[in-house]
Amino acid sequence: MTEFRYEVLAKSGNGRRGRLHTAHGVVETPVFMPVGTAGTVKGMLPESVKATGASIILGNTYHLMLRPGAERVAALGGLHKFMNWSGPILTDSGGYQVMSLTDLRKMSEEGVTFRSHIDGKQWKLTPERSTEIQHLLDATITMAFDECTPYPATEELAKTSMELSMRWAKRSRDAFQARTGYGQFGIVQGSVYPDLRYRSIDALTELDFEGYAVGGLAVGEGQEMMFKVLDFTMPRMPQEKPRYLMGVGKPSDIVGAVQRGIDMFDCVLPTRSGRTAQAFTRRGTINVRNARHAEDTRPLDVDCACPTCTQYQRGYLHHLFKAEEMLGAILLTWHNIHYYQELTADLRRAIEEDRLDAFAADFHRQQAEGDIPPL
Amino acid sequence: MTEFRYEVLAKSGNGRRGRLHTAHGVVETPVFMPVGTAGTVKGMLPESVKATGASIILGNTYHLMLRPGAERVAALGGLHKFMNWSGPILTDSGGYQVMSLTDLRKMSEEGVTFRSHIDGKQWKLTPERSTEIQHLLDATITMAFDECTPYPATEELAKTSMELSMRWAKRSRDAFQARTGYGQFGIVQGSVYPDLRYRSIDALTELDFEGYAVGGLAVGEGQEMMFKVLDFTMPRMPQEKPRYLMGVGKPSDIVGAVQRGIDMFDCVLPTRSGRTAQAFTRRGTINVRNARHAEDTRPLDVDCACPTCTQYQRGYLHHLFKAEEMLGAILLTWHNIHYYQELTADLRRAIEEDRLDAFAADFHRQQAEGDIPPL
Ligand SMILES: [Zn+2]
Ligand SMILES: [Zn+2]
Repeated sequence: MTEFRYEVLAKSGNGRRGRLHTAHGVVETPVFMPVGTAGTVKGMLPESVKATGASIILGNTYHLMLRPGAERVAALGGLHKFMNWSGPILTDSGGYQVMSLTDLRKMSEEGVTFRSHIDGKQWKLTPERSTEIQHLLDATITMAFDECTPYPATEELAKTSMELSMRWAKRSRDAFQARTGYGQFGIVQGSVYPDLRYRSIDALTELDFEGYAVGGLAVGEGQEMMFKVLDFTMPRMPQEKPRYLMGVGKPSDIVGAVQRGIDMFDCVLPTRSGRTAQAFTRRGTINVRNARHAEDTRPLDVDCACPTCTQYQRGYLHHLFKAEEMLGAILLTWHNIHYYQELTADLRRAIEEDRLDAFAADFHRQQAEGDIPPL
Repeated sequence: MTEFRYEVLAKSGNGRRGRLHTAHGVVETPVFMPVGTAGTVKGMLPESVKATGASIILGNTYHLMLRPGAERVAALGGLHKFMNWSGPILTDSGGYQVMSLTDLRKMSEEGVTFRSHIDGKQWKLTPERSTEIQHLLDATITMAFDECTPYPATEELAKTSMELSMRWAKRSRDAFQARTGYGQFGIVQGSVYPDLRYRSIDALTELDFEGYAVGGLAVGEGQEMMFKVLDFTMPRMPQEKPRYLMGVGKPSDIVGAVQRGIDMFDCVLPTRSGRTAQAFTRRGTINVRNARHAEDTRPLDVDCACPTCTQYQRGYLHHLFKAEEMLGAILLTWHNIHYYQELTADLRRAIEEDRLDAFAADFHRQQAEGDIPPL
């Protein structure tokens, strides 16, 4: 069996080119993980997700515990078999979704009691239960249960919240059932306050997780503030472990975070945007519903090698969205995930060749150009 | 260039095993054509449609003329390029959809004036315009513009309607721009009245179409009456041309119609049912939403070779529909189209081996068994 381990293969500035070995396969980093909320990356067959170059996907504890239920997924063979994805799966802890149910939840030292958004039924999530659910799901990477500190938060509130998350991290670590090739990540909190972030890192490294995430970002603070927090946080993070920025982000967020030493990302943007006719391209974001695309015979992104760009005209994609055909969402989701995978592949190459900052400058210049002129 | 031609390779009773040669490829008959209403077989990538064994698909003149418009499809390279389907495409004439807009249309000798179901805008469809639209779409097989006689209809009404359709068939034939490898089919009307059907056949064969369809069936008359009409109609149809039963149907409709000499079918059932959790199987129809499937680890149909049946448990499919995930519709549509393709492939083999009636008896016995017992 493969040991769960991470190796840094190359660096460029603070950017890292790494490799994560797991029970379910190898992950080349920096990596973007498509989100498979309820046991499916929305609109995509798993073989199509793989064809984009994706090596690891994310599953949501909150959604899967409510429906179909963690015990049922386990009875059906675990999440890999259930959803026909044999590669690594990282599951979140459910904490983030539960906290966002502001009117339906009650927090205590023990955990969170909440009502399901589906049927109003009452549930409880604790560090122990979250860890057990992720075990039942057969998650390759289990996340510690934490409180995602809202933004903005006073230093006092951020401190109380971070300290609770650290006690929950200890209980999550104790509840984790280690298996060869599987790992558990702790989550650094502390909002925008350097001292709190450092204390959080110290508390987590005590527990010797297999990886570390930066939490409490991409919650409304904006890119500038997010990068500022990464600027003071990343140098204090363990260097020999994978580092994951949760819920991020736009292409430019990813480029900037890689420049600051992040290895792993997940975000619903490429999938959600794909369903609302938004396509990410090397020349910025375009909306396929726009009338200017109706008779455009060109692909979304001439430099993209995905099946959507190599086989379909913008005019056809425009038609699919106007006619509310499922295939529109399918083809745009495919392209968007592929775009994110090409972006991270390009970042990996740029780090290997020690030209990360030059790559980033090129990226920003191309993005700023905007879409090709109408025909 | 390939000539448009049809050859009968074998017979079993009245059932025919044939081969249709077209500019866009060969079609082995009996054949089932998946419906690609608005330039997409709903929920399916064209390569997935092809992977089911489908060799020809159907497009809808009515939907495509309204959106994106026939001239626009032509400007974008024709329907094959537009929707990335290089195989043969049969387009209907738009007549059936327009007639069903009972409150929004007005008929005359010249054609039909109607209001779009999308935006209420007024349109006109005549035999000439329908034929031109199908030419603009680059249809491999163009259908004559006709009136689908409603059911029930008095003999008087059926006669008037059939005679109008025959005058329109002549105008459609005159408007057809012949191209090598392309063909046009006439449509036999006459409701349930043998004399009217015979007169319709005589009128159409005068015009020497490349194929003939039986219209005005599957409109509420029931399977018994439909078969009765086929029993007296089919022996009078040209033997050396392909024969197409429009809008049919359930698996048992197809088996019975093949026994009566039909070569081609189209129907929305496999695609529409796929979106509403209905799966066709060798043991009848099942509804995947049913709670009995929630923890069922077995495939939909153990004898089906489709990707859905070889890779996914019923429990997972059940979950996808409960969670309203697109992948549920995708996987069930794929299975259903595959099931229809396997059924027609089995029919072709049974005719080749001259055991069509025995195959049909086996088919009905298996269907009557019903679904496998719960686990
Ligand atoms: Zn693309
Ligand atoms: Zn199947």
